[in-house]
Amino acid sequence: MEGEPTLRLRIFNLNCWAIRYLSKRRQQRVRLIGDTLRQEGFDLVLLQEVWSEQDYSELKVKLAGCYPFSHYFRSGVIGSGLCVFSRFPILDMLLYQYSLNGYPYMLQHGDWFCGKSVGLGLGGFAGSRAGVRAPLLSLSLQLHAEYCRDKDAYLPHRLVQAWELAQFIRHTSKAADVVLLGGDLNMHPEDVGIRLLRGWTGLQDAFAEAMHFEGCKNGCTLVPDNCFTDKSELLPFPLGIRIDYILYKAISSFTVKCEELKTTTGRAPGVDIPFSDHEAVMATLHIQRQGQPAGATLGTADPALADVVTEARAEVGAGLRAARRQRYSSGRMAVLALLLLLLQAAAALATLAGLGAEQPFPKLSFCLLAFLALGVLVLATGLHLFHTMEVKMLHGTEDQMWMVLRALQERP
Amino acid sequence: MEGEPTLRLRIFNLNCWAIRYLSKRRQQRVRLIGDTLRQEGFDLVLLQEVWSEQDYSELKVKLAGCYPFSHYFRSGVIGSGLCVFSRFPILDMLLYQYSLNGYPYMLQHGDWFCGKSVGLGLGGFAGSRAGVRAPLLSLSLQLHAEYCRDKDAYLPHRLVQAWELAQFIRHTSKAADVVLLGGDLNMHPEDVGIRLLRGWTGLQDAFAEAMHFEGCKNGCTLVPDNCFTDKSELLPFPLGIRIDYILYKAISSFTVKCEELKTTTGRAPGVDIPFSDHEAVMATLHIQRQGQPAGATLGTADPALADVVTEARAEVGAGLRAARRQRYSSGRMAVLALLLLLLQAAAALATLAGLGAEQPFPKLSFCLLAFLALGVLVLATGLHLFHTMEVKMLHGTEDQMWMVLRALQERP
Repeated sequence: MEGEPTLRLRIFNLNCWAIRYLSKRRQQRVRLIGDTLRQEGFDLVLLQEVWSEQDYSELKVKLAGCYPFSHYFRSGVIGSGLCVFSRFPILDMLLYQYSLNGYPYMLQHGDWFCGKSVGLGLGGFAGSRAGVRAPLLSLSLQLHAEYCRDKDAYLPHRLVQAWELAQFIRHTSKAADVVLLGGDLNMHPEDVGIRLLRGWTGLQDAFAEAMHFEGCKNGCTLVPDNCFTDKSELLPFPLGIRIDYILYKAISSFTVKCEELKTTTGRAPGVDIPFSDHEAVMATLHIQRQGQPAGATLGTADPALADVVTEARAEVGAGLRAARRQRYSSGRMAVLALLLLLLQAAAALATLAGLGAEQPFPKLSFCLLAFLALGVLVLATGLHLFHTMEVKMLHGTEDQMWMVLRALQERP
Repeated sequence: MEGEPTLRLRIFNLNCWAIRYLSKRRQQRVRLIGDTLRQEGFDLVLLQEVWSEQDYSELKVKLAGCYPFSHYFRSGVIGSGLCVFSRFPILDMLLYQYSLNGYPYMLQHGDWFCGKSVGLGLGGFAGSRAGVRAPLLSLSLQLHAEYCRDKDAYLPHRLVQAWELAQFIRHTSKAADVVLLGGDLNMHPEDVGIRLLRGWTGLQDAFAEAMHFEGCKNGCTLVPDNCFTDKSELLPFPLGIRIDYILYKAISSFTVKCEELKTTTGRAPGVDIPFSDHEAVMATLHIQRQGQPAGATLGTADPALADVVTEARAEVGAGLRAARRQRYSSGRMAVLALLLLLLQAAAALATLAGLGAEQPFPKLSFCLLAFLALGVLVLATGLHLFHTMEVKMLHGTEDQMWMVLRALQERP
């Protein structure tokens, strides 16, 4: 076994926080990221929150020499923000948009407009020196942000996303030898969504598996030392939190080991400012061919998996009940607005017919009221449609989880 | 080879046209469909346009004996309309929603509200008598409808859907032995979307391959003999059109042959009314294990494929230009409405400040105008956001097609 050739793969993952007009010192940071990537010469670079295509184009031009293959994933109103740079050919691409991603009317959170997705790149990675060839499935992604940990209204959406992501990986990774996932999962390591994703796909956490680690304590990627982080958000976590991950697994006759994991520590190496408000995560993986196929490693038989799915299903169920309540109240609001409009129409007709002609007709307030009712009707109908979709998707996910739970319970 | 055991698989596919309150004699037809399915005992039933979950539940109860496994796919405002009934266990499920599916403001067409999707069921089909076990990927789907063939505004959307469908099949079918697809593709057999789907996935058309065929001429599934079809739509096609398909392919060491294909002929067998406004398609397939693996059969090296992708890309490009024009004009409309509102605000302020006090202030028309401008602003902004998403998705698909074209041209 020791004599088998090894492919050494260096991966860089970063949430770039490159929002035009909003992110501080964006252009300087994007230049810095480009320079570092060119100098360091990674094999695979997974970036998130590159919201402007112009930033991507600049990076592409700068990195064309050392990363000849790249892809930018387009989706949503603003974009997915995801891009991939690779030293090895990217053979095929697929973008999967999560079915739920926040609410369009939560403008201040903006997740809905981003069309958050997972971008899949299928690459043929050839370790020329070692003679290893491994079709590799690499995923770059971002899940819905957590805005308030104590009262996290987006938890069901994030769980639906984690579930869809896990299902997507299970269904698309069958032909790959190695699956790599890098991204801002917006979840702490012990959160139910991470446990669900890891349990249901068998992905391993590079931080937990690394033989050597260097960087922020506990592998945190949102740290108070970073001058761009929101300090009030980190008050309950004085050391910071870990929400950016590199996960991996070998599917067929390969083994993957994490030799080293590094994070930046509040600033980019050798300069005064950080790459982003998140820390970069850099992993060095060893991919080696095994003697015999490892067998079906998808769908781990972890006995705790049923518990995790049950827990996640309960959260999705709570989200479903909340969505149903919202669907009901928006529907009721629409009906009330419609009734008001009908009442007004009746009053107007009665006036036209000469009834109550002794009193002056209050044209202005009548018009104002009618427009108000019309506005409420349009908005409430839109909300009702939106929450109906939300109910459908949450219900569908709950169903799928139930099916999986039944299969898990029947298995032993 | 002749001695290898064979699995005989009977498949039923139907667009049920079961829209609550709108479809004629819906309940009677759904009962009829249930009765027929119970009597005939197919192995796999793929249904589309079962819009009401109640209809699905009724079918499920009725068919529980002969089809113990079933799934209803939830998505969109109304639902996906897709469901699957199976004699063999359904092991896993995945729903992929197309990124583009018409326009929300085309209420009369309604496709947008349906959340059109492809539902994937992974089943383990065991032919107990023959000893064949084949993991089988079955897909039930519906693409965007064609409302006007001469001036088909939805062609780019349908092509994006066909492309996403093909990509989805390529990425998810790697572990399956056999892929089966049944659905209302809303495309004629020679249309570019069908050629793209078949060329890029290698799927075979059961009608073209069938050793024995029985049913409407040319395999048509929308025929004038059916009392529910819209006769004016079929005027240019006196024999009818074929838009419902059963497609299949063997992936690994299996061969699939279509022994027989049948369609209903304007009415259900033995009764006076048809199942739906579409004809049902029924195929009998023979699945046999081959001596040696067939090798990588995905991504056919058909020399005509590059031409088909080029043709599809040109259509998507035309759609992209149209979407950009619409994005521009909705944006311009929003800006004009905003300017009008600002102008009104200035006039109101001037009046409040006492300017022009000698003239009476036209309160009513002022309010009417303000509400009109506000309404236009909201609508135009919504449209602008929608068309921005459309542009992103069309652009992304055009990019992907270009990548594939480059790979195809480099391959020989």
